[in-house]
Amino acid sequence: MNTNTPLLKLVSGRPAEPLDEAAVIGAKARWATRAKPPGSLGRLETLATQMAGITGQCPPKMPNNAKLVVFAGDHGVVADNVTAWPQEVTAFMVETMAHGQAAVSVLASVSQAEVIVVDVGVANDVTHIAGVEHHKVRSGTASIAHQPAMSRAEADSAVTVGRSMAEALIADGADLLLGGEMGIGNTTPATALISAIVGIEPNQLCGPGAGLAPSQLGHKADVIGNSIDRVRRESTQPLDALDLLAQLGGLEIGALVGFYLAAAESKVPCIIDGVIALSALCVADLMAPGTAKRMVGGHRSSEPAASAALSYLEIEPVLDLNLRLGEGTGACLAIPLVRASVAALADMAELPPM
Amino acid sequence: MNTNTPLLKLVSGRPAEPLDEAAVIGAKARWATRAKPPGSLGRLETLATQMAGITGQCPPKMPNNAKLVVFAGDHGVVADNVTAWPQEVTAFMVETMAHGQAAVSVLASVSQAEVIVVDVGVANDVTHIAGVEHHKVRSGTASIAHQPAMSRAEADSAVTVGRSMAEALIADGADLLLGGEMGIGNTTPATALISAIVGIEPNQLCGPGAGLAPSQLGHKADVIGNSIDRVRRESTQPLDALDLLAQLGGLEIGALVGFYLAAAESKVPCIIDGVIALSALCVADLMAPGTAKRMVGGHRSSEPAASAALSYLEIEPVLDLNLRLGEGTGACLAIPLVRASVAALADMAELPPM
Repeated sequence: MNTNTPLLKLVSGRPAEPLDEAAVIGAKARWATRAKPPGSLGRLETLATQMAGITGQCPPKMPNNAKLVVFAGDHGVVADNVTAWPQEVTAFMVETMAHGQAAVSVLASVSQAEVIVVDVGVANDVTHIAGVEHHKVRSGTASIAHQPAMSRAEADSAVTVGRSMAEALIADGADLLLGGEMGIGNTTPATALISAIVGIEPNQLCGPGAGLAPSQLGHKADVIGNSIDRVRRESTQPLDALDLLAQLGGLEIGALVGFYLAAAESKVPCIIDGVIALSALCVADLMAPGTAKRMVGGHRSSEPAASAALSYLEIEPVLDLNLRLGEGTGACLAIPLVRASVAALADMAELPPM
Repeated sequence: MNTNTPLLKLVSGRPAEPLDEAAVIGAKARWATRAKPPGSLGRLETLATQMAGITGQCPPKMPNNAKLVVFAGDHGVVADNVTAWPQEVTAFMVETMAHGQAAVSVLASVSQAEVIVVDVGVANDVTHIAGVEHHKVRSGTASIAHQPAMSRAEADSAVTVGRSMAEALIADGADLLLGGEMGIGNTTPATALISAIVGIEPNQLCGPGAGLAPSQLGHKADVIGNSIDRVRRESTQPLDALDLLAQLGGLEIGALVGFYLAAAESKVPCIIDGVIALSALCVADLMAPGTAKRMVGGHRSSEPAASAALSYLEIEPVLDLNLRLGEGTGACLAIPLVRASVAALADMAELPPM
């Protein structure tokens, strides 16, 4: 239970639909009669039970049609020296993903998930790269240290990009969704959003992201703290989730917000990745409280803000592999565990009467 | 680093071959040039590096031909009230596995591994069950509380069963081995072996196994402690690994010892399951020190003795899902992570010079 006060005055939206209670009860009853000691499959049991609750089916259908959407966007705040990488790397990695050679491409292939790469806000022009879907809302955000990342209308457009992607994939038969992201510098807005929502100061949440030197972490925390202070000064009214996203977020983060909201509304299971994904889920859960209950925690990133968000959202991730790459890699690695849990609940023998 | 003294006087055998140093160095160098921040794939990087060191290849070959052997055996010590389950359940579960309906059968199917069930010491006659390989050394052990579990010759025969299985599978092209087990009551001999080797008293290592009531845990620890005391009284000479196995082990545990030794000698990667598997690996590592370095840690079982063995063997398991079922289930769930690590090292793009 989170007992901190948000760093900004925030207002929540209308609650998401709770898990299907009958399916949850059915899954628990079914586990109790499988040929094994009660509870001995541990986290696999709670995972399959959640899958039943999300989908409303017991046993849940095996999710064999998994789609992983990587949303890419750039961040004005890189000009404030919060990352060791040049902004051009975002476009380079978009191209690497389009060629199927990024970490997420390789891991998705092993997990039998299809990867779709979407430009929602890359600073450079990437229209020449084959295999990228183009839904650019704007060419990177403004620096959150000095002004809102984007307008409220742009934030809304980014959310709509993600929502539309999820809805189209679900209409096409996707039964398991994963959100990934690429955006140099994006642990800074992600940590800002998490800090503001969960109510923990940035200096307790800042990690090296993609490899910032330890000596620079204090500066990164200052930039995030100053950004939150700026919003506090500029805001006369409490902020709703879209205001917060426009102020401190990013275009790929906004797209993930819409992606998660649509998955939850459609009752399609969705696996959450690391700190960027979790920042988007914090925003989505502010927009529609309870959305996080419909999400499967993929992994515990080594970024401190990720653990803060997991705790706030009451999500227990299935993996803890000390990953801090993003792209959707950690979510991707959790796919086989989700399938294994569903298979065990569906296909194991019943215990005979003894 | 283990700093405890074994509870019994033990002598080690000849060391196993260390990991291939050139392949380990090659894997680390290859990771350093992949298109991602250094170290950002965390445990996946160390896993693929170990795979290179085990197989002597960099990048290691993708292990697509995985075989999981479940060795089944019974335990005389069940007469001493150490488990809530009747001994007949061993034979019942052997049949359930042969029908592909046990937890391990279902999970192996998801992980694309073939399951082979071997009777090495079931108390009941299971020759009528189709699909079981029959290599029974004896019909269950004697109770370790009162006498040696088996003779030294029988222990040697059990080790040979496991060794022969691994060698035959490897000759047939298996490139990833997993050992599983079934045997009502086998957390008692497993905890006795781990306690004696790692040098931690049984009352600190006893868990509920397949569901023993908390009120019975003290009795189980006493039975294990008395068994170790008996061996101490009866032994005039230090024990080698085979003596220890004969005194406190089990037939399926002995088969796992041989299975691991053969995998290590053949430089074929092998994933370790929970507390029973770890007890066998402790014995194998006493027989050929360094064998554990050639094993991939599958998961951290919730049994306390499992964590003690992992620490003693300096193994960091890839999963921690609060499992305590055995059968090979935890090892099985780790297969996709092993494959993912190898794929990432082999197939990711190189970082361009910047």
